[in-house]
Amino acid sequence: MSLNPDQRAILAGVTVATITTVLLKKGIRNTFLRGPMPFAEGQPRLVGEAFTLRFVPVREDLATPQSWSSPVSTRHAIEAMPHGVVAVADAMGVADAAIFGDLLVARMKARGVAGLVTDGTMRDAAGVAEVDFPIWCAGIAAPPSIAGLTFVGWQEPIACGGVAIFPGDVIVADGDGAAVIPAALVGHVIEVSPEQERLEGWLMEEVKRGAALPGLYPPDAETKARYDAWKAGKG
Amino acid sequence: MSLNPDQRAILAGVTVATITTVLLKKGIRNTFLRGPMPFAEGQPRLVGEAFTLRFVPVREDLATPQSWSSPVSTRHAIEAMPHGVVAVADAMGVADAAIFGDLLVARMKARGVAGLVTDGTMRDAAGVAEVDFPIWCAGIAAPPSIAGLTFVGWQEPIACGGVAIFPGDVIVADGDGAAVIPAALVGHVIEVSPEQERLEGWLMEEVKRGAALPGLYPPDAETKARYDAWKAGKG
Amino acid sequence: MSLNPDQRAILAGVTVATITTVLLKKGIRNTFLRGPMPFAEGQPRLVGEAFTLRFVPVREDLATPQSWSSPVSTRHAIEAMPHGVVAVADAMGVADAAIFGDLLVARMKARGVAGLVTDGTMRDAAGVAEVDFPIWCAGIAAPPSIAGLTFVGWQEPIACGGVAIFPGDVIVADGDGAAVIPAALVGHVIEVSPEQERLEGWLMEEVKRGAALPGLYPPDAETKARYDAWKAGKG
Amino acid sequence: MSLNPDQRAILAGVTVATITTVLLKKGIRNTFLRGPMPFAEGQPRLVGEAFTLRFVPVREDLATPQSWSSPVSTRHAIEAMPHGVVAVADAMGVADAAIFGDLLVARMKARGVAGLVTDGTMRDAAGVAEVDFPIWCAGIAAPPSIAGLTFVGWQEPIACGGVAIFPGDVIVADGDGAAVIPAALVGHVIEVSPEQERLEGWLMEEVKRGAALPGLYPPDAETKARYDAWKAGKG
Amino acid sequence: MSLNPDQRAILAGVTVATITTVLLKKGIRNTFLRGPMPFAEGQPRLVGEAFTLRFVPVREDLATPQSWSSPVSTRHAIEAMPHGVVAVADAMGVADAAIFGDLLVARMKARGVAGLVTDGTMRDAAGVAEVDFPIWCAGIAAPPSIAGLTFVGWQEPIACGGVAIFPGDVIVADGDGAAVIPAALVGHVIEVSPEQERLEGWLMEEVKRGAALPGLYPPDAETKARYDAWKAGKG
Amino acid sequence: MSLNPDQRAILAGVTVATITTVLLKKGIRNTFLRGPMPFAEGQPRLVGEAFTLRFVPVREDLATPQSWSSPVSTRHAIEAMPHGVVAVADAMGVADAAIFGDLLVARMKARGVAGLVTDGTMRDAAGVAEVDFPIWCAGIAAPPSIAGLTFVGWQEPIACGGVAIFPGDVIVADGDGAAVIPAALVGHVIEVSPEQERLEGWLMEEVKRGAALPGLYPPDAETKARYDAWKAGKG
Repeated sequence: MSLNPDQRAILAGVTVATITTVLLKKGIRNTFLRGPMPFAEGQPRLVGEAFTLRFVPVREDLATPQSWSSPVSTRHAIEAMPHGVVAVADAMGVADAAIFGDLLVARMKARGVAGLVTDGTMRDAAGVAEVDFPIWCAGIAAPPSIAGLTFVGWQEPIACGGVAIFPGDVIVADGDGAAVIPAALVGHVIEVSPEQERLEGWLMEEVKRGAALPGLYPPDAETKARYDAWKAGKG
Repeated sequence: MSLNPDQRAILAGVTVATITTVLLKKGIRNTFLRGPMPFAEGQPRLVGEAFTLRFVPVREDLATPQSWSSPVSTRHAIEAMPHGVVAVADAMGVADAAIFGDLLVARMKARGVAGLVTDGTMRDAAGVAEVDFPIWCAGIAAPPSIAGLTFVGWQEPIACGGVAIFPGDVIVADGDGAAVIPAALVGHVIEVSPEQERLEGWLMEEVKRGAALPGLYPPDAETKARYDAWKAGKG
Repeated sequence: MSLNPDQRAILAGVTVATITTVLLKKGIRNTFLRGPMPFAEGQPRLVGEAFTLRFVPVREDLATPQSWSSPVSTRHAIEAMPHGVVAVADAMGVADAAIFGDLLVARMKARGVAGLVTDGTMRDAAGVAEVDFPIWCAGIAAPPSIAGLTFVGWQEPIACGGVAIFPGDVIVADGDGAAVIPAALVGHVIEVSPEQERLEGWLMEEVKRGAALPGLYPPDAETKARYDAWKAGKG
Repeated sequence: MSLNPDQRAILAGVTVATITTVLLKKGIRNTFLRGPMPFAEGQPRLVGEAFTLRFVPVREDLATPQSWSSPVSTRHAIEAMPHGVVAVADAMGVADAAIFGDLLVARMKARGVAGLVTDGTMRDAAGVAEVDFPIWCAGIAAPPSIAGLTFVGWQEPIACGGVAIFPGDVIVADGDGAAVIPAALVGHVIEVSPEQERLEGWLMEEVKRGAALPGLYPPDAETKARYDAWKAGKG
Repeated sequence: MSLNPDQRAILAGVTVATITTVLLKKGIRNTFLRGPMPFAEGQPRLVGEAFTLRFVPVREDLATPQSWSSPVSTRHAIEAMPHGVVAVADAMGVADAAIFGDLLVARMKARGVAGLVTDGTMRDAAGVAEVDFPIWCAGIAAPPSIAGLTFVGWQEPIACGGVAIFPGDVIVADGDGAAVIPAALVGHVIEVSPEQERLEGWLMEEVKRGAALPGLYPPDAETKARYDAWKAGKG
Repeated sequence: MSLNPDQRAILAGVTVATITTVLLKKGIRNTFLRGPMPFAEGQPRLVGEAFTLRFVPVREDLATPQSWSSPVSTRHAIEAMPHGVVAVADAMGVADAAIFGDLLVARMKARGVAGLVTDGTMRDAAGVAEVDFPIWCAGIAAPPSIAGLTFVGWQEPIACGGVAIFPGDVIVADGDGAAVIPAALVGHVIEVSPEQERLEGWLMEEVKRGAALPGLYPPDAETKARYDAWKAGKG
């Protein structure tokens, strides 16, 4: 789905922790990508539609330096990325061959891609850091992708970090990692998450004041009444 | 590629061990599927063109009993399988949800599919055994596929057991497990493998006669001469 | 919960595959124990209430031969097992120390325990085989439990093979492995499973007759009507 | 056991490295928790009696948002923690569901808990960092505990990071990670560790002066004599 | 060490389970090799001095078909094996390249090697089965060793299945797997194991008669007295 | 091989990413050590001949504090290290026992060792940081080596992080991790790598100017011509 600026702004104000909780309450438990964590400290929260990339394992006749010039290559995939998407790469968790280095990351940034999320790794870590592009990845490795991976296409359904991602799903990422919001549930998440964030902010103040947890979190009827009164008083 | 009966017959007389050695000598080292082993003892050697199936991880909004009736379902994939192919399913090595049970396996057999190879698992093991269909899989598990997997399509490039497989590659399997022959190398494998098998048969006789290994295996010039003489004598 | 003989008989006629499907349709996806598989070929289906055993990792000051004489020992736990229960042992998947050997298994059999399920391993495999007791385990290892485990108690909530099991849950096991039926859902499973088994039996006959899968499995309205007619005709 | 202030002070001056060495010399090799590492840089050394928490895997009928209000919940467990203890949580190494976020950590801090050690993960990492509470954990993940875990109780024997921990054992943690001191060995550790630290400090000066390792570390008779002379000179 | 026929005979009458228990009581807990299990059903118990083989990972410039003719090759290692030894191969647990096939196994048999133990895999499984040679391995794989391994030498200290093995240690293997007896402890194991086996045989009879476990196993004073009386009666 | 100062200087100006690519183009894919990453931020690039160290798993009769005084000990190995080498330790990836602490690291520094690379872990992390010695390791753990490892020798072929390393190979390490250059290929790497670095530097400028990737990277004929012109213009 295509997010409008208001939707982006709301999601940018919600933590991934809250989003996974909201989705779990709808019965969707498997939304958190295992592996991708922030490449650099202090990266801004990432929100955008998923643009998927797919790798399969290395096969020495196909995963060659020549393959980088093929029409089915990461190079062409990057040129196909629209402005504002989040590139999500299924590297099958391969930890000893990197999907991208500084050159490709720099080109993604130049094209206005919002960020990159992968269960694989990055190379040229020093160069990538200089590019200053938001990346959630599963580590760093020196070898090029073709040492372990064969690129096979983009905008297909993928697995990433043990989670299914379809083109059009929405990806969010922050210091807790990355999660997918299924396209059909984006509206619901946008509707209920901000209130959940507000409640948790108030609860933290209560805890700081010395409140005990039972009855407070989750709130029982009495707590809810106090919270509603606080909200009314603020309104 | 489409194998003709002669090609099938030759490949059916060659072990997977020999095929992986022949491919390694051409620089193709990653051809052996990690995980799939014979479901039943004494299964005949399996040879055929790969017909690929692809799963991604479970997502509870999509991996539902209703999805089994979808046009993108394993049911429709099976109906699309031509006679004589080897179905190869990328289950990402998921060990706690089974891709198929006895009903689907029985239908594959009815359609003339040559066999099934997967890095996933089978359920209804007793029922599957009764169907008597050649299967190489990575184990047995009771839960249905949708407990851990979402089916997304067929005849796409896949990963299976850490190996890349493309529609049109050839799959071979025996008691040592399963391997892929890249389409472009099938001719080469067919050309050199039978001679390799003959040589190894002769070498085993030499070992049984008490020959020491150095100089014998791999054969040095003197051994090669003796072998050639033996071949000439047989010819 | 305590199963009556009728309930036992019904569950003994249902496959673990069917039970996990029935529970999944109720939203309970995590019921299949990863690891435990039949110790011996041809073991009868196992059904019974869970009697839990719990181990933590080895600590050399506690996991000693002397500990086997302690009141908190596997020996006393076995003497506390009622007739007909299924002993379920949380060994944390430890593969290099065995929880039980032939002597303890023989005593469980003598006490009328229905069977043993564990994510750990057995030792004295030859002796255990002679005892002829139904066991689902994750392998075989020679060292005694105290080489890797410390026994801490029984009839507590446990993890076994990645699944939560509470005293009073029901355990079922067959050739596909073992699963838990949460106590509160045993009635539901007993109610709907036999019909599911009957339907699948009829579907297999249809497949053998050459029926294609779409519309058949899962059955569409037309298939359901034919099945209902068949049932009526049998009635 | 209950540590008195003198005991706490001594243990706070000893590294976890030294403690594991001292325990190994008593035959206790399995004391280091695999997984827990400092959540924040520069956390002070942690010392305290273990207060254990125990999780088992998720079961969707039990691990619900409603369970957070149950008497057997992490909320009630936290309210039961005495001042000065180290909370130690057995999360079975689950990496994709977090046991605690900022609210619960803030409450532990308010209650005077000394710190938290777990083989599981934390969520709301930014919020947790603001609370400024000493935590040793195995990573960060966004989903709530009930995405993967069911809480079952406190002050029971547990496994944490492959180590057995009993209520009353003492936990120590520093930049090298966390270890358990079995209750019965706390006195011994307190007795011999400070001398070991003093010796190692002197040895480091020797190495800096250019001493070779053989004969120095471990010290032979000549080295011991020199060390004793140094100690006497300092006395 | 070199076993004399009497020592061999005694060890051949003791289970690996008993041997690991005897060694554990001497403080040696890490003696059981993780991975190696019987290649064929019904293999006789294996006893012999360790003859070690060592592999490191593949390096494509060294692990070539040409390397098989090198003086540092498995071929030359086999020719160096004395009669009666147990070949123990450190394959680092590599599961997707096989250390040996039928030809090399046949030559080991011809040389009077007692058996083979490895944490790696075998290829040409059908051919190996025909050779009828006692093998404990960690599975089967089709590719040759050089697909994943480089052979570097023999009769060096090795790791095998997570256990240290030195030339001269003794290896024992049965249906429970394989273990090492450190050379210095072989005498002790031979001294105490047969009595332990006799005791366990008597205990099994007691269990069959309906004896409860506490007090019986391990035996308390009363049980020991009864056992001693039984032994005296037999004597 | 022994690097001369010019060779060292050239290699010190090349990234590990580039080196692994250059080796891959020669068919050597397995050169990147899985596990070792920089111990401290901002460590200078490391280059030097490999001096290997080898551990096998713990055996309690051998891995004792007394073993630290043995002639076959890490202490003696360190005293055998020539100036300028890179110590490379095969710890079999053991994560819960550390190979070295601050004392041994300080001695390596005093001896002029260039750095340490290991797939194992370090202890006394705070003390090691103070020594300020370049280390690539797989983590931190408190227990001493003998909690999990037995040291068996130096300057033998080893496995480290899944890669084969022979005495005389060259080790390079930077922020992307560590790799081996086989001795026979050091000349080739030195010959072609600097040009590759120069090309990539130019390519990055092109990307920053907005160039699209296809045709640029890898460069097609037109791009090569522009690059050659640029080089000529610089010359």
